[in-house]
Amino acid sequence: MQEELEGTEGGLSRRKLLVGAGLLAAGAVGMGINPMGVLAGANEAEASAAAYPWPYKKLDIAEAGRLAYEGYYPGMSCSYATLKGIFPLLAKSVGEPYRSFPIEGVQWGVGGVVGWGTLCGTLMGAGLAIGLIAGDGAEAIINDLMFWYSETELPIFNPGKLAHAELKVRSVSGSPLCHLSTAKWMSRAGVGYKDPLRIDRCARVAADVAMQTATRLNKWVAGEYRPENKRKYSITEFGLAAQTNCAACHENGVPKLFK
Amino acid sequence: MQEELEGTEGGLSRRKLLVGAGLLAAGAVGMGINPMGVLAGANEAEASAAAYPWPYKKLDIAEAGRLAYEGYYPGMSCSYATLKGIFPLLAKSVGEPYRSFPIEGVQWGVGGVVGWGTLCGTLMGAGLAIGLIAGDGAEAIINDLMFWYSETELPIFNPGKLAHAELKVRSVSGSPLCHLSTAKWMSRAGVGYKDPLRIDRCARVAADVAMQTATRLNKWVAGEYRPENKRKYSITEFGLAAQTNCAACHENGVPKLFK
Repeated sequence: MQEELEGTEGGLSRRKLLVGAGLLAAGAVGMGINPMGVLAGANEAEASAAAYPWPYKKLDIAEAGRLAYEGYYPGMSCSYATLKGIFPLLAKSVGEPYRSFPIEGVQWGVGGVVGWGTLCGTLMGAGLAIGLIAGDGAEAIINDLMFWYSETELPIFNPGKLAHAELKVRSVSGSPLCHLSTAKWMSRAGVGYKDPLRIDRCARVAADVAMQTATRLNKWVAGEYRPENKRKYSITEFGLAAQTNCAACHENGVPKLFK
Repeated sequence: MQEELEGTEGGLSRRKLLVGAGLLAAGAVGMGINPMGVLAGANEAEASAAAYPWPYKKLDIAEAGRLAYEGYYPGMSCSYATLKGIFPLLAKSVGEPYRSFPIEGVQWGVGGVVGWGTLCGTLMGAGLAIGLIAGDGAEAIINDLMFWYSETELPIFNPGKLAHAELKVRSVSGSPLCHLSTAKWMSRAGVGYKDPLRIDRCARVAADVAMQTATRLNKWVAGEYRPENKRKYSITEFGLAAQTNCAACHENGVPKLFK
């Protein structure tokens, strides 16, 4: 049972696997899958008349980066900045529902959720955009984005003659966590969290993630998106939701939780 | 500079501190704060006609829990389930914009973002609801919710005669991360990730977080919300976005990144 946990190579979504495995009975009463493949509860009709997924038109990648970078500075929220690189462009090219969605509502992603250092806020903002736009294809794209973020020397984006042109240092986070991503960059750059260079680094990462999101959604809408990485990162390898680079946190070896 | 990083005891928001500290100039061109206190970029008029924050009416706490628990089972997405406990009730009592928002768009939060074990998906779903509803008050409420989640023996919710009534084990996660939260519960319960009891545990946690979210938003809308915890968890203590219980990951001591 529960093939959704096994990891799949692209293609099949968690939802399709669940349906295929006939697992819907477990505790669910009156639930079902509608013809669009959208999850539907007993109260669906009264709960939501939502169109899903949201419509999408190809984005200008460079413009997405510029808007995200500039969007970082008013409130220094990386989650807000990333979404600022995507939704305002779609508000212009598509209109609703982007025009009515207040991206201020994701500012809390700052610092890996109000400073706790968990998921990098840029990935939360990007995840929300991809989740609303790519429907059944969203999880594969988000999974690839998490890999790209963890394995790429960032930041790549350069705002040119704007603030902090002297920022040259790049680093590989090895993780989608704000805590590790910022710590590794700060260590290499030799600056603290409050340094204007660290702040500009995070603005540039927001631009990078917005550009990656736009690049991947542009491929997806053209029917050309091919998942790059195995899904469900390491549940089969370690027996729980986890990254595979354990030593990034567990310097002293992985705890033996289960006898 | 950057008082927003210093941690504040309730009351003042990050945004207000930023404005007070006159930090808006750094790299921002044509940005401003509108009379509602909402961040506004140069393209605001064309980017969004969004009403923000979203309207709210007091929720039935028990109903929020029941809907979240039942919402978990069709697709086993904790982020979807938590939002399912909140938005459909507001779609009935308030109407738009809840009726038009497709909560399917947050399913990717499953397993701490498609199985990576980062932020518990229930907190992503709850964060989005609180962020859209509580405006300037959202970050204090989300911060308190992160503390509550990390320090409370979960799950509390009991679906009664529904599935897996034998589930009795509770555990304290010490963290808002899926990886730690599920690992500690599984260790205490002696079951693996794929066990139906672990799955029901996460359905119950979604119910708990939905109920906590509803409880806190009900207080907030009545003007009775008092922040319980210091903001910006440990930036001042450790020099970066982080939790304070370092040994939860760094069993061999905290790395010395900065000489």
